[in-house]
Amino acid sequence: MEKKYVAGVDIGGQTTKIGIVDRDGNIICQTVITSKYGSEEADIFMDSICTTIKELATEVGMENIKGIGIGAPNGNYYTGTIQDAANLPWAKGKTVKLGETVSNKLGLPVTVTNDANAAAVGEMKYGVARGMKNFIMITLGTGVGSGIIINGELVYGHDGYAGELGHTTAVRENGRICGCGKTGCLETYTSATGVARTARQWLENSNEPSLLRELDEITSKDVYQAAVKGDKLALEIFDYTGRMLGRSFADFVAFSAPQAIILFGGLARAGEFLFKPIREEMEANLVSIWKGKVELLPSALKESDAAILGASALAW
Amino acid sequence: MEKKYVAGVDIGGQTTKIGIVDRDGNIICQTVITSKYGSEEADIFMDSICTTIKELATEVGMENIKGIGIGAPNGNYYTGTIQDAANLPWAKGKTVKLGETVSNKLGLPVTVTNDANAAAVGEMKYGVARGMKNFIMITLGTGVGSGIIINGELVYGHDGYAGELGHTTAVRENGRICGCGKTGCLETYTSATGVARTARQWLENSNEPSLLRELDEITSKDVYQAAVKGDKLALEIFDYTGRMLGRSFADFVAFSAPQAIILFGGLARAGEFLFKPIREEMEANLVSIWKGKVELLPSALKESDAAILGASALAW
Repeated sequence: MEKKYVAGVDIGGQTTKIGIVDRDGNIICQTVITSKYGSEEADIFMDSICTTIKELATEVGMENIKGIGIGAPNGNYYTGTIQDAANLPWAKGKTVKLGETVSNKLGLPVTVTNDANAAAVGEMKYGVARGMKNFIMITLGTGVGSGIIINGELVYGHDGYAGELGHTTAVRENGRICGCGKTGCLETYTSATGVARTARQWLENSNEPSLLRELDEITSKDVYQAAVKGDKLALEIFDYTGRMLGRSFADFVAFSAPQAIILFGGLARAGEFLFKPIREEMEANLVSIWKGKVELLPSALKESDAAILGASALAW
Repeated sequence: MEKKYVAGVDIGGQTTKIGIVDRDGNIICQTVITSKYGSEEADIFMDSICTTIKELATEVGMENIKGIGIGAPNGNYYTGTIQDAANLPWAKGKTVKLGETVSNKLGLPVTVTNDANAAAVGEMKYGVARGMKNFIMITLGTGVGSGIIINGELVYGHDGYAGELGHTTAVRENGRICGCGKTGCLETYTSATGVARTARQWLENSNEPSLLRELDEITSKDVYQAAVKGDKLALEIFDYTGRMLGRSFADFVAFSAPQAIILFGGLARAGEFLFKPIREEMEANLVSIWKGKVELLPSALKESDAAILGASALAW
């Protein structure tokens, strides 16, 4: 009989979400474990993942689990490894054989990729991209990630790391310094962190009154809340951020001519504050054959479920 | 018995090259016809293509021709049409059913795509990309074209027009006006025409002595010849052009993580004048996982043969 369930594992900097999912994208059960292990503790962490999957699987029977999908920072599809993930002490400056280890311990096939790729597959399997063969998923979180689907398949490239659109250059001259070592990366302007950075910079460089001046530490959520209240500076920040994204999206379209670009992550919830300037700037910079033809869509996955769903979708 | 030959047709703005090619990429025979037909003469031109193929095929026997590949400006793989090709009066502002017409007349399968895509397939079948599954072909001619190979296949995208990397934005502020209607397109700086444009601009805006000042009309070939003679301004022009390309190439790598970027076309013959600054600037702007890992290669196809070979490769 065909196995009916898969396990989805989403490894984040702080926590790892694990769930059992059926073919329709229903999460049967889920839990959260810590990702915080020291530099020598990768094995302990991987043990913990395996134990947790076994515990969760008792509900449906371990024999009914078809496989395991894992989304992780710097997760590599070809090798099943996590390579030098800056935010995970147990995977920093080294290569962790995640796929092989978990697969051996549980006796099941394991597919590893990065979190944005997992989100793209999740969207295609269960979300707004059902039936689409060509689209680009952009995740706007602490960083800017991307998963590119061409001809119904994830683009992994020659080495398994394709789709780092957050590190394409948005500003060539005097661009912001990025954690990756480059300057001007799209991520430094348009991630949640980038939006907060813009806010701090603009507040410092102008005397424009703003609700944001009352705050000690500014997050992108603060900027959103100020925008909702009609704060002019906050609205301008979203406009600036959206235009930066729209310009880059026009370039992405010239690459793979997608049917849609789908936005996921905290910032994507800013709705038209962000979508309007993106759409305007993208349209203004598209080659004429694509004008009015590329959809700009918010993800249809519930954010709390998306990570597990995305990872699980890899396992089918 | 398996058919041993294909016909390759390369439609350019001035002339159309047609040849019969065997499986090893030997051009058995070839000829050139004019592409210059009026706005109502598409049918006459397509007749001329068919007649020419028949004539050429007498050498090997029409019954031994497996199919026909056609590379053409704005050629669309999905629909087999040429859509609104600015440089072809008979295809300007309209859609010409090239594939269907030629296929019906000759009773053979016809594959249509744009010229840069054809060049990429030619390179994969007969050239320096043999065995490669992920690479990007950049053609530096009157314009800048591109063909993107992912997982061994050309990227066509949702609509068949993917891979217009010459129209990604290289300069976001006060960029040069492009024929496509946008500003700042990579093509306006790094095509043969773009190089000549840089030369004219720089000569006008400085008093720097240069061999180029002696010329009435400057082409990229003139800039190359001056560079060979050690002309400082000409060398700076290649440096500027190469850096512009290198920056963009780093972004392309972040998209599809190719094994190599292959340069084709007149300008690519400038060799290290162009390759050195491209390499330096690309490396400086690559995310660390790709540094030193992406090959930068000149095409291995003889330029006079490449167009026919590329188009013919589509037909296998």
